[in-house]
Amino acid sequence: MKKVLIATTALVMTAGVAAAEVSLSGNGRMGVVYDGADWEFSSRARVVFTLSGTTDGGLEFGGSFRADQAGDGATGAWGADTGNAGSVYISGAFGKISMGDVASAPEALFGDLASVGYMGDSQGTANGGTNNIPYLTLDDGTQSALLYTYSAGAFSVAASMSDGIGEDLGSGGDDQVYAVAGAYTFGNYTVGLGYEVIDWDAAGVDNTTQLELAAVATFGNTDVKAYYADQQDGIIDAAFGISAATTFGATTVAGYVQQIDAIGGGDVTWYGIGVDYDLGGGAVLSGAIQDDDVTGSDPTANFGVRFSF
Amino acid sequence: MKKVLIATTALVMTAGVAAAEVSLSGNGRMGVVYDGADWEFSSRARVVFTLSGTTDGGLEFGGSFRADQAGDGATGAWGADTGNAGSVYISGAFGKISMGDVASAPEALFGDLASVGYMGDSQGTANGGTNNIPYLTLDDGTQSALLYTYSAGAFSVAASMSDGIGEDLGSGGDDQVYAVAGAYTFGNYTVGLGYEVIDWDAAGVDNTTQLELAAVATFGNTDVKAYYADQQDGIIDAAFGISAATTFGATTVAGYVQQIDAIGGGDVTWYGIGVDYDLGGGAVLSGAIQDDDVTGSDPTANFGVRFSF
Amino acid sequence: MKKVLIATTALVMTAGVAAAEVSLSGNGRMGVVYDGADWEFSSRARVVFTLSGTTDGGLEFGGSFRADQAGDGATGAWGADTGNAGSVYISGAFGKISMGDVASAPEALFGDLASVGYMGDSQGTANGGTNNIPYLTLDDGTQSALLYTYSAGAFSVAASMSDGIGEDLGSGGDDQVYAVAGAYTFGNYTVGLGYEVIDWDAAGVDNTTQLELAAVATFGNTDVKAYYADQQDGIIDAAFGISAATTFGATTVAGYVQQIDAIGGGDVTWYGIGVDYDLGGGAVLSGAIQDDDVTGSDPTANFGVRFSF
Repeated sequence: MKKVLIATTALVMTAGVAAAEVSLSGNGRMGVVYDGADWEFSSRARVVFTLSGTTDGGLEFGGSFRADQAGDGATGAWGADTGNAGSVYISGAFGKISMGDVASAPEALFGDLASVGYMGDSQGTANGGTNNIPYLTLDDGTQSALLYTYSAGAFSVAASMSDGIGEDLGSGGDDQVYAVAGAYTFGNYTVGLGYEVIDWDAAGVDNTTQLELAAVATFGNTDVKAYYADQQDGIIDAAFGISAATTFGATTVAGYVQQIDAIGGGDVTWYGIGVDYDLGGGAVLSGAIQDDDVTGSDPTANFGVRFSF
Repeated sequence: MKKVLIATTALVMTAGVAAAEVSLSGNGRMGVVYDGADWEFSSRARVVFTLSGTTDGGLEFGGSFRADQAGDGATGAWGADTGNAGSVYISGAFGKISMGDVASAPEALFGDLASVGYMGDSQGTANGGTNNIPYLTLDDGTQSALLYTYSAGAFSVAASMSDGIGEDLGSGGDDQVYAVAGAYTFGNYTVGLGYEVIDWDAAGVDNTTQLELAAVATFGNTDVKAYYADQQDGIIDAAFGISAATTFGATTVAGYVQQIDAIGGGDVTWYGIGVDYDLGGGAVLSGAIQDDDVTGSDPTANFGVRFSF
Repeated sequence: MKKVLIATTALVMTAGVAAAEVSLSGNGRMGVVYDGADWEFSSRARVVFTLSGTTDGGLEFGGSFRADQAGDGATGAWGADTGNAGSVYISGAFGKISMGDVASAPEALFGDLASVGYMGDSQGTANGGTNNIPYLTLDDGTQSALLYTYSAGAFSVAASMSDGIGEDLGSGGDDQVYAVAGAYTFGNYTVGLGYEVIDWDAAGVDNTTQLELAAVATFGNTDVKAYYADQQDGIIDAAFGISAATTFGATTVAGYVQQIDAIGGGDVTWYGIGVDYDLGGGAVLSGAIQDDDVTGSDPTANFGVRFSF
């Protein structure tokens, strides 16, 4: 098998001339996971396609999706080929417009709480994604949703929306979502505000809305992030959480805790702590323990090596 | 489409020595589509793998398929891995033999009418692919069909066939298809003739056949294409169409009209017009309006940016 | 996530600094296949992603999977993304640890009998994979199984296991598999021993085990491989087989025969012979005939061109 390394493009193009290109990156992991009942082996490998180009007028455009998100050409039901995985964008002085499986405006600006451990934000079913902030909109691979982001100095703003057509989120009709968010950075602090709406396609049903307040602080090698979310006319009353990550040498320690107060009971607190040790070259030793306060639910744990290529 | 040559291979190989390689290219689009009822966002991103090599004797071989056409290794039911998406080829002085999800002989030589707009030849369900010439055979991802093409000076010929085994096109049995086509170019004109056959695997059922006459003319920056198709023992009586595309500066305007006369009524006329504006670097602003003469069917429209990488 | 621009990495990195990278290779084939009843066209195209990197301490890591094995991000049910296709590894002075859809320990050391013909080891259903040695374990895409291999001078050892959790091989429960193997090379000869176990998750059911003895000899341009397998508490009594492959100039001739003695009747002998002719540049003309001694089962044959890129 002949291994073909990519890219004479970069070599033959003359200085200053932008060339459209496709580049490859990848990641993987191997280790062991305790799902609250059994220890299991766990591994995966992924490849990411990154597309980029520049117009004659200086606008940048491109997109990105993973090989496993390319889509199934036979059914055309899902994937980057259909617009509900990966995304494309065009950007310039006016900001950046992205379309596809984009994040909601507040998620685009604030992200999630610190990721811990070998599985990152996605350990299994027991405590799946418990460091994720419960944003209200665009977390379900909506087809070709729109995200606009713009930054000017210390200010960043974002707006997101779906067209709603054919997107049934529970009403049985065409449920549309939209959101706005803003952030302001001063010194080592960033504060932000987000507002998300689900406009139900049903007569006499109030929109479900969620207001988020987020703050990030950086002290030396330590990052702290906290948020508070207040939902109206939904299934959650409020949610809040905080995480911290600090790096010393090759070691990073991170932890988070968040609480979801549900309407009609079912409150839950999630927490986790993890340690990473950077082996260099794209390999990181990583382990974590995560748990919640639900009766009868055991802690989960994982340990292994994460790779990036 | 800008092919991104992946390949330090090219750098280390000595002059004259052919090296097999895999290269990447891609495309994407983002915009809005009116499907006759609603405006919706629409986007997608695709990556194309292009395989190529040369034997010691100078034969060229290779293949191509998209990432979303790679196939599903779990089921093996569809994809380039199975031979019903993408294709492979070998070529030399004898011509080119392709196998896989190939076009029928006349489609290989004549193509379709001019593509218009941001969605190219595939706007939605309402007027889907209405610039496509209704070739009789090999438009359904038949597994490992065969296409042979050969050009000598002003003449081009093509032949295509399926093996029929396991390909039920409607008889309930193994329906085989084959086709031949030829084209002759003189000055700015090309004329061609194609003949396609479906050989039904059913006793006493006549073959369905279709004869196509096609002509292409190029005047400066303007291309005109017209065809007439005459079907026997099928569901169509005849079809004809014409398209034109002209480029001035960065702008291209294209339009088409075609009429399908069906056996037993249901005639339809499809038409569309589109404008492209080349932003350079692989990005094109594009919009189109398409419609038909069916009562109760609204026009469709689209506008957005197409990318190639 | 470290975006790896494929391959400027190699160009800008200073000597001795290892860079993580993703490389592409591919393969394809086109030809005709006789499945015992009909001649059919047969073709396919594949792309392989190979990931590799090195830690600061000199450990090597990476992985590999095919584009059609990437997985389906919509269902997450199968693929390299889920750990039951492709694999990842880390290796160093301690040996190599692989995880994913790995081979069992004896298969990792001994492989299969010689592959013949254009379809390699996988001609259709009639005589599918009849040159494959019937290893007992890890031939079914088990999720994230583990393989350890180590070589020191003339000795090679391997160990493999699944975690069993959620892997029902027939008991209705969590059936775990494990295996060990060793090989010793002296001059042109290699001999090896393997032992595989299925530990059924059912009360009072004996483990199914299989002992394999394998030998490989190389005489000039000729390779000979033979094996004997003895199964206990399974559906096979014993199996044995031998293959030889010899190359003269651009031509390689290979053949194999193997016999499976089943418990309770149904013994079968499989055999095949094939010829390859190397066209250079990654293209090989190849044909083969394969058959078995089952009454009413016709021989299969294939002829075509294999490509590697």
